Amino acid sequence: MITLTTDFGLKDPYSAEMKGVIYTINPNAKIIDITHDVDKFDIRMGAFVLASATPYFPDGSVHVAIVDPGVGTDRLAIVVQTKKAFFVGPDNGILMLAAQQQGIEHIYELSNPKFRLPKLSKTFHGRDIFAPAAAHLDQGVSAAEFGAKITHPITPPFTSLERRNGALSGEILYVDSFGNAITNIPNDQLQAQTVEVTLASVVLELPLAETYAQIKPKEAALLAGSHGFLELALNQGCFAGKYRVSAGDRITVVCV
Amino acid sequence: MITLTTDFGLKDPYSAEMKGVIYTINPNAKIIDITHDVDKFDIRMGAFVLASATPYFPDGSVHVAIVDPGVGTDRLAIVVQTKKAFFVGPDNGILMLAAQQQGIEHIYELSNPKFRLPKLSKTFHGRDIFAPAAAHLDQGVSAAEFGAKITHPITPPFTSLERRNGALSGEILYVDSFGNAITNIPNDQLQAQTVEVTLASVVLELPLAETYAQIKPKEAALLAGSHGFLELALNQGCFAGKYRVSAGDRITVVCV
Amino acid sequence: MITLTTDFGLKDPYSAEMKGVIYTINPNAKIIDITHDVDKFDIRMGAFVLASATPYFPDGSVHVAIVDPGVGTDRLAIVVQTKKAFFVGPDNGILMLAAQQQGIEHIYELSNPKFRLPKLSKTFHGRDIFAPAAAHLDQGVSAAEFGAKITHPITPPFTSLERRNGALSGEILYVDSFGNAITNIPNDQLQAQTVEVTLASVVLELPLAETYAQIKPKEAALLAGSHGFLELALNQGCFAGKYRVSAGDRITVVCV
Repeated sequence: MITLTTDFGLKDPYSAEMKGVIYTINPNAKIIDITHDVDKFDIRMGAFVLASATPYFPDGSVHVAIVDPGVGTDRLAIVVQTKKAFFVGPDNGILMLAAQQQGIEHIYELSNPKFRLPKLSKTFHGRDIFAPAAAHLDQGVSAAEFGAKITHPITPPFTSLERRNGALSGEILYVDSFGNAITNIPNDQLQAQTVEVTLASVVLELPLAETYAQIKPKEAALLAGSHGFLELALNQGCFAGKYRVSAGDRITVVCV
Repeated sequence: MITLTTDFGLKDPYSAEMKGVIYTINPNAKIIDITHDVDKFDIRMGAFVLASATPYFPDGSVHVAIVDPGVGTDRLAIVVQTKKAFFVGPDNGILMLAAQQQGIEHIYELSNPKFRLPKLSKTFHGRDIFAPAAAHLDQGVSAAEFGAKITHPITPPFTSLERRNGALSGEILYVDSFGNAITNIPNDQLQAQTVEVTLASVVLELPLAETYAQIKPKEAALLAGSHGFLELALNQGCFAGKYRVSAGDRITVVCV
Repeated sequence: MITLTTDFGLKDPYSAEMKGVIYTINPNAKIIDITHDVDKFDIRMGAFVLASATPYFPDGSVHVAIVDPGVGTDRLAIVVQTKKAFFVGPDNGILMLAAQQQGIEHIYELSNPKFRLPKLSKTFHGRDIFAPAAAHLDQGVSAAEFGAKITHPITPPFTSLERRNGALSGEILYVDSFGNAITNIPNDQLQAQTVEVTLASVVLELPLAETYAQIKPKEAALLAGSHGFLELALNQGCFAGKYRVSAGDRITVVCV
């Protein structure tokens, strides 16, 4: 099974061209769209969507994620092999949050011309490099056959948490349409009733809630989100608007 | 075959998470999107879309429809078994218009924990309850195994027609982008050349037309719609705008 | 494999109804959406999208394309058999650009009632004529069984190039979201370093470039596009805006 997560949109034929390439190599492929509506060039949002959806897919799936502002530069194309699946995309961090959840085993460059389209465009590696790689991985080609081992993939700040003196620091990944600010801190990383949350412009003492039912109307909380990450929420309100929080902001949490 | 009709949109990973859950249970499932762009919380529109599309799907299909403003409350989750297929979703009326078309046989609650994800979120029953139910139904699990029999499902006004003294009363289900006001009255319920239509603000004498070709330019009519329901249409114009008709309005028709 | 290219959008159940019809005829069909977001009634854009995507699909595919402002008039419904695949849609030119790329062999009318739904609507031939035709072609029914041979299909100006006195004339097919003006001239039709391009309002001497890397910042060029057609591009700018170019405009090129 091959999943696709991109910022290509659904109007242009880009995602269809990728599917055509995959089916030409492997007519029996099963391709599932996660989304093609990641905000343009928003690697952090792409990483969040990928990390939210992939835990629900079967073992052995091949997950392709392409938000690729660096296409045409010397950024690498990679495949990340985890304990559970494969992740295919540019080496810009988009794959790492999801891959880390599953336990990364090896990372390889996608450089073997045997597993690319014969003629490479400068601007559409989704079709020319990533789609063929996914089709071949799905057919059982070993990840090691694609190219050199990569030991230092790009890891933007949102792909890691920082622990210091009992404080846990992370980043806001995404502000959803309800104004909830989703962090890169997995739900199971904190155990407390109350936490002190430090944001760019404010320090808040908030309940750590399992469900909305535990938050009073108009009250804010750090909530275990249904996507697997803790999120800053304001019951019946817009947290991000009230506290001026944006994707990319730092967040530090201390259990009280 | 499993179809999906939701108001989740295509930007967030919700529909993809449902698909992941279905494929994890049944790797051979065939999943078709009807739409994920029902207007948010618009049960009536969801019911209309479901009733329009499902007649064209093969017997034995499992149709999942989720527009679910009551998620997290005590509203039930149900499966409706018809003469032709299964309908899975919340017990808020969204399934009933489509299910009635096929002849309802039994309705059961989706309460058996064996056919849910082990950990239920409060906010995303699509992934945790409805997707697993669909996957298990598609694999042949009997609807009766899911829970108690439901004898009084929720039936909002748009799920039924009222006949009195030769008059037929129903509701406007949806106003489409051309301004046609689609009713909940099936095309085959009326036989006449001319009908008197009573709306909230106006009484009109209209031709009952089979095709647009039978309506003169700028003339209004009650038209046999391609979705299977009678619709109020204004040839080369916007009926809903001219006569101020909205979804949810009552309509009464008498054959003249 | 059956692909779908339409202007139906994803909100209404139209594309789902087509899929239901196809699966009812052929439960093992494999259906791929190219896009349902062609601009409403824009035959030229539909033709461009179809011609971009179909070269990447396997031989023997059935490509359905429906942008059909003439539905309900006496325009014909056709199947175009090429050396590689089948194209199904209205006879208004939408199929011809893509079909010509593959080498057209025969064109037939879709008139045999055996391969239509029993009851035809006036407004939705996608479901009633084109979907069943695609399903039957995909199952091996010969194109010749669908109806009379068509020898003079509709060919709008964008489906052909004109050569005169060493000049090559064509048309702007589509202006993309970056302001690139994509022509109907295949990438391999010109060989030169510099070309003189005549547009409605301006004559430009431009480099003929293989990749963006060959164009200086702020410089315009005639560029080999990743869709297979030459496009007018302005590096780090919007060509169509600067030179007031729109879809449908004529373009004449002379090698210098």
